[in-house]
Amino acid sequence: MLSAGKAISTTIASYVVGTKGAELPASVRQEALRSFFNFVGCTLGGAHHPGVTLTLQALQPFAGAGQATLLGRGRRSDALNAALINCLASSIYSYDDTHEQAVVHPSGPVASAVLALAEVEPVTGSDLLAAFALGVEMECRLCKALTVPPARGSMAWSGTGITGGFGAVIAAARLLGLDLPTTRTAIGIALSQAAGFRALHGSLCTPMMPAQAAQTGLRAAFLARAGFTSSSAPLEGRYGFLSVYCEEPDLDALTGDLGTRFEILRNTYKPYPCGIVIHPIIDACLELRRRHTPAPEDIVSVAIQASPGAMALCNNRNPKDEMQAHVSLHHWTAVCFIRGTARIQDMDTETAVKDPALMAFQDKVNATLDSSLASDAAVVTITLRDGRAYTSRIDHGIGSATRPMTNAELEEKFAAMAVPVLGEQRTRTLMQHCWDLAVLPDAAEVARLAG
Amino acid sequence: MLSAGKAISTTIASYVVGTKGAELPASVRQEALRSFFNFVGCTLGGAHHPGVTLTLQALQPFAGAGQATLLGRGRRSDALNAALINCLASSIYSYDDTHEQAVVHPSGPVASAVLALAEVEPVTGSDLLAAFALGVEMECRLCKALTVPPARGSMAWSGTGITGGFGAVIAAARLLGLDLPTTRTAIGIALSQAAGFRALHGSLCTPMMPAQAAQTGLRAAFLARAGFTSSSAPLEGRYGFLSVYCEEPDLDALTGDLGTRFEILRNTYKPYPCGIVIHPIIDACLELRRRHTPAPEDIVSVAIQASPGAMALCNNRNPKDEMQAHVSLHHWTAVCFIRGTARIQDMDTETAVKDPALMAFQDKVNATLDSSLASDAAVVTITLRDGRAYTSRIDHGIGSATRPMTNAELEEKFAAMAVPVLGEQRTRTLMQHCWDLAVLPDAAEVARLAG
Repeated sequence: MLSAGKAISTTIASYVVGTKGAELPASVRQEALRSFFNFVGCTLGGAHHPGVTLTLQALQPFAGAGQATLLGRGRRSDALNAALINCLASSIYSYDDTHEQAVVHPSGPVASAVLALAEVEPVTGSDLLAAFALGVEMECRLCKALTVPPARGSMAWSGTGITGGFGAVIAAARLLGLDLPTTRTAIGIALSQAAGFRALHGSLCTPMMPAQAAQTGLRAAFLARAGFTSSSAPLEGRYGFLSVYCEEPDLDALTGDLGTRFEILRNTYKPYPCGIVIHPIIDACLELRRRHTPAPEDIVSVAIQASPGAMALCNNRNPKDEMQAHVSLHHWTAVCFIRGTARIQDMDTETAVKDPALMAFQDKVNATLDSSLASDAAVVTITLRDGRAYTSRIDHGIGSATRPMTNAELEEKFAAMAVPVLGEQRTRTLMQHCWDLAVLPDAAEVARLAG
Repeated sequence: MLSAGKAISTTIASYVVGTKGAELPASVRQEALRSFFNFVGCTLGGAHHPGVTLTLQALQPFAGAGQATLLGRGRRSDALNAALINCLASSIYSYDDTHEQAVVHPSGPVASAVLALAEVEPVTGSDLLAAFALGVEMECRLCKALTVPPARGSMAWSGTGITGGFGAVIAAARLLGLDLPTTRTAIGIALSQAAGFRALHGSLCTPMMPAQAAQTGLRAAFLARAGFTSSSAPLEGRYGFLSVYCEEPDLDALTGDLGTRFEILRNTYKPYPCGIVIHPIIDACLELRRRHTPAPEDIVSVAIQASPGAMALCNNRNPKDEMQAHVSLHHWTAVCFIRGTARIQDMDTETAVKDPALMAFQDKVNATLDSSLASDAAVVTITLRDGRAYTSRIDHGIGSATRPMTNAELEEKFAAMAVPVLGEQRTRTLMQHCWDLAVLPDAAEVARLAG
């Protein structure tokens, strides 16, 4: 635990400014690359969500010159607006990433900010990757410091809402080459605009919180560079950030073992665009379907032993719209056995959700609580018309920290979202450029390819 | 006290949507007009502050079309940027307005939002005035509900930062003619971006907090109109706004006696651009100077009996820059006796602050604590070379709620800020248009005249 007198903001700014990209372990650079790759795919996947379209239309009258790409929209906008819109798209299906412990979806705000920045002030892919890694790292650390025991904080805050701007400004400040005091100033500016609480969950405000964080974080870096002022101790000072957003922050989580412990290594990616506690159920259903190829009409019943989390949040039969389908284990079970998939297009329209075949199948699905199951576990048993029964037990769902998505699985996820927007060929080229980010002379190439 | 089950957000949206401008009492419309008038003057006064100039330059690359006037800058920007910049200018000298009880400076975010809006979607002066009055009213009510006993809230939040967007969105939603559910949605969007804490006091982040509130409030109204979603209970819901920003809010202050009790009537205006607890000292000094016309060199000593607030915050001799001069009672005492004034230009440059005559005079000034004095009271005694001594006792400084600034005093304050920017003639025309706001067919006329 740091002593209360230690200058936390200075420690952080010093670390961010002083760390050479090459000093980041290969594992960190690799996980940053996977996080970035996943972000680009998710942004394309959300780019045509009606919520993104309406936001774009509402803000267009106030947007500036076309400096930066709106991924998947075939057009450009000013960099601050692009940071907001791209992050909104990346977050809108809650399909992005989640730190294993802190409830934060770290990549969206940071990646949106640096990608927009790269289009107005060119940087190498290697520099962008290092800045992104450090932004995500510090965002995860801050969120952990606010919410993961021994910290005692309020669950009412949106973790990404209040820490995303911190990640974004750190990455942007680094890319702009700001010195230590200016970086610290920039952090203070961004923190002064940190916001978001959970009462708005299930509405478009949820993805807007990270989007707003991306924009204000990027803007803070530009303001600091121009000479704007804040404080030399915005985090730890009296009446400072930590004092208002947390009853008792865990300072060691924030600044302990900087440069040796890396929270970004605990980032996870969602394989399916739905509530994370449904994921092991989907794994089990898809496995049963692969192994036994039951025709949907031959299935008499699907008995699900579900974790407490799945029962509390997702025991919702016959959802009526995308938001409800997102958290319905019945919906996804039916989708798995009827379509053999679990994609955005399985929930993003009323037609997809209210498909009569899906609705009828859900009557066969019953979930019961098994308190011994962790949130990444599930047991699914199908009984067929002829009396045969098959069971699949998943101890750790795909995408959990114990069983991380492989690069091939990330590619499959990426392609499922990108191909409908960009087509096969452009998707392949874009994926390759993402993987090659660290050697691109101009990082903005990725954004332009994703336009 | 409202029962916990009452739908507070709905009550507020209903009030805002359902109140006819003509239903507002004449006293309310008059105080709204004075608040608006004071805002325009303060915005011109701050328009050329270096902090405004650098913000404008930093954000210019991202700004959109020239839709709305940047007051006092002879140029235009997109409406969202104009709302931010104008509010920043209005707040930057902390010379604007303050609710008598809640520490909120209400007019900046609301007026900046509606004035920018009026330039893109024309409205009458009468409609703008009513919308502004309701926005300020609700902002003051919310800040009171969070911070004034019996509420138990944290002083660490910036009152204007976390409630300014609420005022701004209410006024903007009303001007856009949004219906009840859409207004409630807009309120939720704005609240989800409420931010600002006090550790950054004394930096440019302080005026940026209301500025950010102005911008996000205005944007929220546009987003809601376009179909963006939030919650039907953003204030009172579980994990809602009230739960995160206050330990125990005073709900009666927020929604009690809506339409009969008006907090805007308790708005006050600063006669001098410095810490409010110095104001009665300035009144006393200027009165002594008027009555006895002492030459500065004939004054041997100035003995000040100061309130606890003045001693705690402003007992600072020989300030080094504008920020320090702002809260130095010695500085302003010297300015009064040497220059006979207390204006922005008495502190806004290093030359003004470090004038050797001012510095020398401050050695004669001594303040002692008089715990019996309220924060709007002071006693000043000057002793002259020939042994004569004169005392002035101020029980309620000009601009306090007990002794509000007259319209003539507001005009004097306005002119001192506007004339250096616009010249005598344009200032006179602009002041007249401000007073005539309620009968202007196009409210934006005020903004254009102030360009």
